[in-house]
Amino acid sequence: MNFCTSCNAGHLKLHNLNSTTDTQSSRRKSVWLLQRSPCRRGKFDGPGIIIMSRIQLYDTTLRDGSQGEGVNFSLQDKLMIATKLDNLGFDYIEGGYPLSNPKDEEFFKRAADMDWKHAKVCAFGMTRRKEIDASDDIGMQALVNSKAPVVTIVGKTWDLHVNEVLRVSLEENLAMIRDSIAYVKSEGREVIYDAEHCFDGWHANPDYAMQTWKAAAEAGADMICMCDTNGGTLPEQIAAGVSALQKELGVAVGIHCHNDSELAVANSLAGVNAGAVQVQGTINGIGERCGNVDLISMAANLALKMHYDVLVDGGIKRLTELSRYVYEMANMNFRNGQPFVGNSAFAHKGGMHVHAVNRIAHSYEHITPESVGNARRVLVSELSGRSNIMAKTTKFRLEEDGVLQTKILTAVQDLENDGYQFEAAEASFDLLVMKQAGTYQQAFELDHYRVNVENQSREPVTDAVIKLTVDNEVQLVVGEGDGPVNALDSALRKALTSSYPGLSEMTLVDYKVRVINSTEGTAARVRVVIESKDKTDVWSTVGVSENIIEASWIALVDAFEYKIHKDRGAVGDV
Amino acid sequence: MNFCTSCNAGHLKLHNLNSTTDTQSSRRKSVWLLQRSPCRRGKFDGPGIIIMSRIQLYDTTLRDGSQGEGVNFSLQDKLMIATKLDNLGFDYIEGGYPLSNPKDEEFFKRAADMDWKHAKVCAFGMTRRKEIDASDDIGMQALVNSKAPVVTIVGKTWDLHVNEVLRVSLEENLAMIRDSIAYVKSEGREVIYDAEHCFDGWHANPDYAMQTWKAAAEAGADMICMCDTNGGTLPEQIAAGVSALQKELGVAVGIHCHNDSELAVANSLAGVNAGAVQVQGTINGIGERCGNVDLISMAANLALKMHYDVLVDGGIKRLTELSRYVYEMANMNFRNGQPFVGNSAFAHKGGMHVHAVNRIAHSYEHITPESVGNARRVLVSELSGRSNIMAKTTKFRLEEDGVLQTKILTAVQDLENDGYQFEAAEASFDLLVMKQAGTYQQAFELDHYRVNVENQSREPVTDAVIKLTVDNEVQLVVGEGDGPVNALDSALRKALTSSYPGLSEMTLVDYKVRVINSTEGTAARVRVVIESKDKTDVWSTVGVSENIIEASWIALVDAFEYKIHKDRGAVGDV
Repeated sequence: MNFCTSCNAGHLKLHNLNSTTDTQSSRRKSVWLLQRSPCRRGKFDGPGIIIMSRIQLYDTTLRDGSQGEGVNFSLQDKLMIATKLDNLGFDYIEGGYPLSNPKDEEFFKRAADMDWKHAKVCAFGMTRRKEIDASDDIGMQALVNSKAPVVTIVGKTWDLHVNEVLRVSLEENLAMIRDSIAYVKSEGREVIYDAEHCFDGWHANPDYAMQTWKAAAEAGADMICMCDTNGGTLPEQIAAGVSALQKELGVAVGIHCHNDSELAVANSLAGVNAGAVQVQGTINGIGERCGNVDLISMAANLALKMHYDVLVDGGIKRLTELSRYVYEMANMNFRNGQPFVGNSAFAHKGGMHVHAVNRIAHSYEHITPESVGNARRVLVSELSGRSNIMAKTTKFRLEEDGVLQTKILTAVQDLENDGYQFEAAEASFDLLVMKQAGTYQQAFELDHYRVNVENQSREPVTDAVIKLTVDNEVQLVVGEGDGPVNALDSALRKALTSSYPGLSEMTLVDYKVRVINSTEGTAARVRVVIESKDKTDVWSTVGVSENIIEASWIALVDAFEYKIHKDRGAVGDV
Repeated sequence: MNFCTSCNAGHLKLHNLNSTTDTQSSRRKSVWLLQRSPCRRGKFDGPGIIIMSRIQLYDTTLRDGSQGEGVNFSLQDKLMIATKLDNLGFDYIEGGYPLSNPKDEEFFKRAADMDWKHAKVCAFGMTRRKEIDASDDIGMQALVNSKAPVVTIVGKTWDLHVNEVLRVSLEENLAMIRDSIAYVKSEGREVIYDAEHCFDGWHANPDYAMQTWKAAAEAGADMICMCDTNGGTLPEQIAAGVSALQKELGVAVGIHCHNDSELAVANSLAGVNAGAVQVQGTINGIGERCGNVDLISMAANLALKMHYDVLVDGGIKRLTELSRYVYEMANMNFRNGQPFVGNSAFAHKGGMHVHAVNRIAHSYEHITPESVGNARRVLVSELSGRSNIMAKTTKFRLEEDGVLQTKILTAVQDLENDGYQFEAAEASFDLLVMKQAGTYQQAFELDHYRVNVENQSREPVTDAVIKLTVDNEVQLVVGEGDGPVNALDSALRKALTSSYPGLSEMTLVDYKVRVINSTEGTAARVRVVIESKDKTDVWSTVGVSENIIEASWIALVDAFEYKIHKDRGAVGDV
């Protein structure tokens, strides 16, 4: 385990570029990597062998990402996303702003009791208010009380903002930076200092900008992250800034970019090339205005193009899964054209190309779709790769059963063509596997349901009538509710609980709806994801239909069926 | 009118960087520009004065862009888009592939009779087929017969593709390039040679790649455009390739990038920095897989960040208009987060911020929204303060009316406590302002609605009954739909269109549902946001209720009310 002396990057790792198809190009790549690596973090070691160091990925989806217009995570969403990020090997996860709202406060309470495999959880806040002790500042106190092992403090670099926004003297701003960092360090935390408007400030008044960074370094900041807050900086300017800071202070430098000039990825890479060892960003690039840098593209470029060490082994192969999981949680549509993980990212048009694509696909693709867990699409149909399926069915021990694998793959592809997504609905996926394997037992047989919503003078009344057969008995029941799904839920419980008493301990946690092909407005297809829980588990189910009530019904029935199979011990059996 | 001796770029132009707010930073910018300009196309001429040359913008929206999934332009669309591009000052417009289909053939017939202010129309095709005379090749003939003044010929750079796809000898490929270009030149056309898989080919076999470019140059190509066909190349590699080609052959070089690594804009800028004088791309970056480089972002960066001469004077100010025009033509939804021209690109959130934004906006924005024809938006978020409200109500001219301001603020805060969010529902916010100001006129009076969803054997049927009074007439109508919202929408149109004919041109674009306090599962409150549009505008409305149908109804009614007030010219009136 060696360390890069010049930039304090994490452990070094051996990469063999001969794994690429062409050693001539791999040798050239190696040379580029060396030329690009300013602190000579790479060692060129015979044809195609190069040693590159770790780049830390700092995820702020839960804080900066949630600033995005219309993005809104529940506490449960946040905890589930953080767990996913930890599993993939993200180095830092910024959970939120403890002072800002009770939800974030609660997040840190829960996070403190969780067992993190890889990531360090970070609490975010501003420097202390003017003219008070850091220890008396409620913001500072909230950061410390969050128990987060890492505290990220944002401060002002740009004299204009010190004068016009903070309205304090340039000296007081330096003191605010110094005191805030020193206080949190004295509480034994790792401190990352986010230098706001870093590059604009440096251009406007380089001397003062350098003083703010110096104050942060001297106060003990473990890293200074340079933030292109307005997203207007060009790659060459990023590189110049990172080099200048490193040369002057020799601290570990991070880079935090926004996409206002459509350069966030290039700017972050330029920062890394200039010696930055940490990249801050969000999954799918969500965030305010034009968004933050997309850590999906960053991880893929750093690992597959520049051969840096990022995430855990196999983490890159799960980027597509991660991207879709976060979209589902954020209740946003996938971006078909999204680099690396988009549904169209490896879509090849038919015609003369197809034959060649099948024969020498690598010559039509900058990377293999599988390397990021995506799939090639040559024909029109949406293809969910066998590897994805296999990854999801390990608990079913299907490795040997090729026939069943194919049946499942076909079923999934048909459903995906109808708008289903199983990334965030594993319970529905498990039911699908059991149906294909023949181990699924239908819990009841529906005759019909009817939902009625009536609004007389702004007081809507909703009831649902369900007729079904369970245990050879016909049940005709009616349930009331605050809304149609609630009414269907209560009617279904009435009809089934006597046969399946376990249902009484099941509750619905979350309900998400999304229009799939939204250009058709209200006539478009609707995807509903329902999250349910009992004493021990949380599970998600999905339904798709042009009718939101029908889509909800499908997801609701899956939720009930999953609970029933789970109580029967059937889940995971084939 | 001078010419850049080293790169044959178009006429040079004077830029005064002091137009930016901060001369210190502008001077620094000038220096960067010089450092960046490899052929020293810039001359630093006193504080902030710099001379930069023209970069040609080559639009292939109508050809490469139409390869994008779901993109399909009619002949009329193509002619209208081409005219728009010409008006804004694009240098080249690629109309299509004459051989490929009658529509493209017809396009060139029409284009030949049109009077182009600025742009040259280009016909696109491949090198001749193997072992025949270029003049006998139907593809070549189609290009010449298209009468297009410029012909763009794509040919193979990568030996792998010559061997495996064309299946001809390396020599024959060189001959195909040579003959095809020479033939079209002999017909008196300007020829742009698109070198396919240019960078992959160069990495795999640099000597052969150079031979293909040499063949093109010797045959008389007016420009060699280097295409990163698979979109996998990094900026440094682009720069190295462009420099190598220019150094060896001294020809005019263009750059054609795809976005598979989310680097298309950075790669195209790197190409320009290395001496490329033409950028090929599409409007909004539409195109296959992850798309082509977005010429909107390119034009804005080249003009506003690097001070190159692009488009006509005033062209940059029309980029937002152009972007939305092309989305409309392509029948695609706008991308809110799109750099420069997106609806969120200059959206500011958060109460405390907003006061400062109003005072020193430039310090929160990398460019002024107006410079690209976009507008600043202040989002009314949870943190609604008076300054947010004021910023949002400028069009209502409320500055003086403190009492009304307070009424609005209170109303917004009450609604936000109930779960409303106006940041993504400005039309509902405008209606709220008009209600508080007393300028709102109710369009109809509801007696009641009733929605019924019935599912017999997996075929749900939905109808909605509405009874309301409009123009003192009672309307009792029933509408059917794919789902409850669709049914309510069609019933409401039945009841109102005779009184408000404008409604017939309104369509619903998107429908979003969010559960607010999701811990209560399906009994939680539901927020519905509906996005609607007509020929000229897009607007969003919001509704909140425990009942998803009621929440949808509230948002739907606001959408109708907003359209009606808009047509009446009442929006913005108090």
